[in-house]
Amino acid sequence: MEKVVIALGGKSLQPKGNHPTAEEQLEVVKHTCEYLADISCDGYDIAIVHGNGPQVGDILLASEEANDVTPAMPFDVCGAMSQGYIGYHLQQALKYAMSVRGNNMPVITVATQVIVDRNDPAFSNPIKPIGASYTAEEAKEMQEKKGFPMREYGDRGYRRLVASPAPQRIVELDAIKAMWESKIVISCGGGGIPVVENMDGTLEGVEAVIDKDYAAELLAENLNADILLILTEVDHVALNWNTPNQENLSKMSLKEGARYIAEGQFQTGTMLPKVEAAMKFVRCYPNKKAIITSLDKAMDALKGQGGTTITFA
Amino acid sequence: MEKVVIALGGKSLQPKGNHPTAEEQLEVVKHTCEYLADISCDGYDIAIVHGNGPQVGDILLASEEANDVTPAMPFDVCGAMSQGYIGYHLQQALKYAMSVRGNNMPVITVATQVIVDRNDPAFSNPIKPIGASYTAEEAKEMQEKKGFPMREYGDRGYRRLVASPAPQRIVELDAIKAMWESKIVISCGGGGIPVVENMDGTLEGVEAVIDKDYAAELLAENLNADILLILTEVDHVALNWNTPNQENLSKMSLKEGARYIAEGQFQTGTMLPKVEAAMKFVRCYPNKKAIITSLDKAMDALKGQGGTTITFA
Repeated sequence: MEKVVIALGGKSLQPKGNHPTAEEQLEVVKHTCEYLADISCDGYDIAIVHGNGPQVGDILLASEEANDVTPAMPFDVCGAMSQGYIGYHLQQALKYAMSVRGNNMPVITVATQVIVDRNDPAFSNPIKPIGASYTAEEAKEMQEKKGFPMREYGDRGYRRLVASPAPQRIVELDAIKAMWESKIVISCGGGGIPVVENMDGTLEGVEAVIDKDYAAELLAENLNADILLILTEVDHVALNWNTPNQENLSKMSLKEGARYIAEGQFQTGTMLPKVEAAMKFVRCYPNKKAIITSLDKAMDALKGQGGTTITFA
Repeated sequence: MEKVVIALGGKSLQPKGNHPTAEEQLEVVKHTCEYLADISCDGYDIAIVHGNGPQVGDILLASEEANDVTPAMPFDVCGAMSQGYIGYHLQQALKYAMSVRGNNMPVITVATQVIVDRNDPAFSNPIKPIGASYTAEEAKEMQEKKGFPMREYGDRGYRRLVASPAPQRIVELDAIKAMWESKIVISCGGGGIPVVENMDGTLEGVEAVIDKDYAAELLAENLNADILLILTEVDHVALNWNTPNQENLSKMSLKEGARYIAEGQFQTGTMLPKVEAAMKFVRCYPNKKAIITSLDKAMDALKGQGGTTITFA
């Protein structure tokens, strides 16, 4: 059986718009799990990595908003909570979707820590906005009192920024590896709970967001997966995106990818990390492939009939 | 190797007092994990179930407090988040405590759903107070608008009540079972995320709190554990507790236990569920034992030198 690590984007987990309810999330997750169950029951060994941007943002927001009545949670803990929240919904919905297809495979969520390098240059250049919006005055106070880097976002006010370092090592990898062939494992949620490893071997949570596509790539590498499947809002990677000359790509080699990146074809923070993760995977395993496509087209793309397939050559 | 399911009480996870920070929790968890690692490295196969009372209370509190900026989370989701939160701290600290003892066993947290019976009489008599305190007016509004049962707690104001039904089935049992001998698995956190099973097979989160000692007992039964070890704040189960005639018990048979319960020796909500869980385990496995003791005395108690050992006869 081909082994597929699936990276699920935010749209596969929540409806559009700000601050959906948990019930609304669950409805979207149920829909998503129909597709995932189809893939699994079609004979692929799947492992799932999901994003957590909006969810961890809302958890942090609630936590900060309620700080007068109960202490705000550090960001690593918010990440751990989002893994519990999203993992619970996914495992509940996917287990059911599998069962109606006559498949009783266990589906489990593993709380996952991912080690990042304390010296990652990303820490000196935090770029990911998270949590609530604040006034200039509040932002100044947070910067002074807590040392949070803050940035102004026009009318939206000021938001806190965190670093987005590269994932180095998945702490719970052994367990994920051991379960991967007999169970559907949901891990590295939100890119993993970011931790650094101290010289004495202790792990320590840090304020950071790991890109979930990079984390999924690392997992796929470590699990020796056959395919890295990155699901996003569009069916294809495209050149000249959102212009009259848009050109959807059905395949892309490393060489082509490098040229397109140099041309600035892919947007930072959205398509670029997906393309980079896909390219890293096939650079590591030149005889394997990565696919970037939408949930709708995922099954076709696995059969080579849709989406963008990234290969070594 | 003897297999031990360990139920960790609240005191093993957080300092005393209201609303500790996550950092304070982590310090207590690190201390607790020293004891757990000693037990594991002494040759016991351990699996861990933990409580979540204060944590899920604070998560719900923050969620309700911030309801104007982001929708409050349903109670099952708060439970899932607490599993991520506490599990993350436990697995981080325990993995380290194991490693300094020269043991590289994986430690993982599994998000766990536990099925309860929708017809459990507990649902018509909610008894567990959770979340924030409200004024009479707010309580009335919550009761009318959301249908939450509320109860007055003197000066503390009104609090929301949820039911505490009995755990029937652990959804992720297969996965926990498969990992149990080669990994330390943290599961059924807070007694498990409470779900009911609909006639069509779908699971559905419900507003309830499952007693973590009952959940630990169910896990111990299902895993065919040798020992159910329930850790609490006191070294022994006692008769005439907190009176001049207090008598600490080093052992207790089912027959004795039944008599003490009939005498009203054990307090509802604290010692009673622990004694009941212990008795249920040895009733199921008459040649095995349950132990109720403190974290400090746990290792001695496993060797028969402390705590209260509950046996069939």
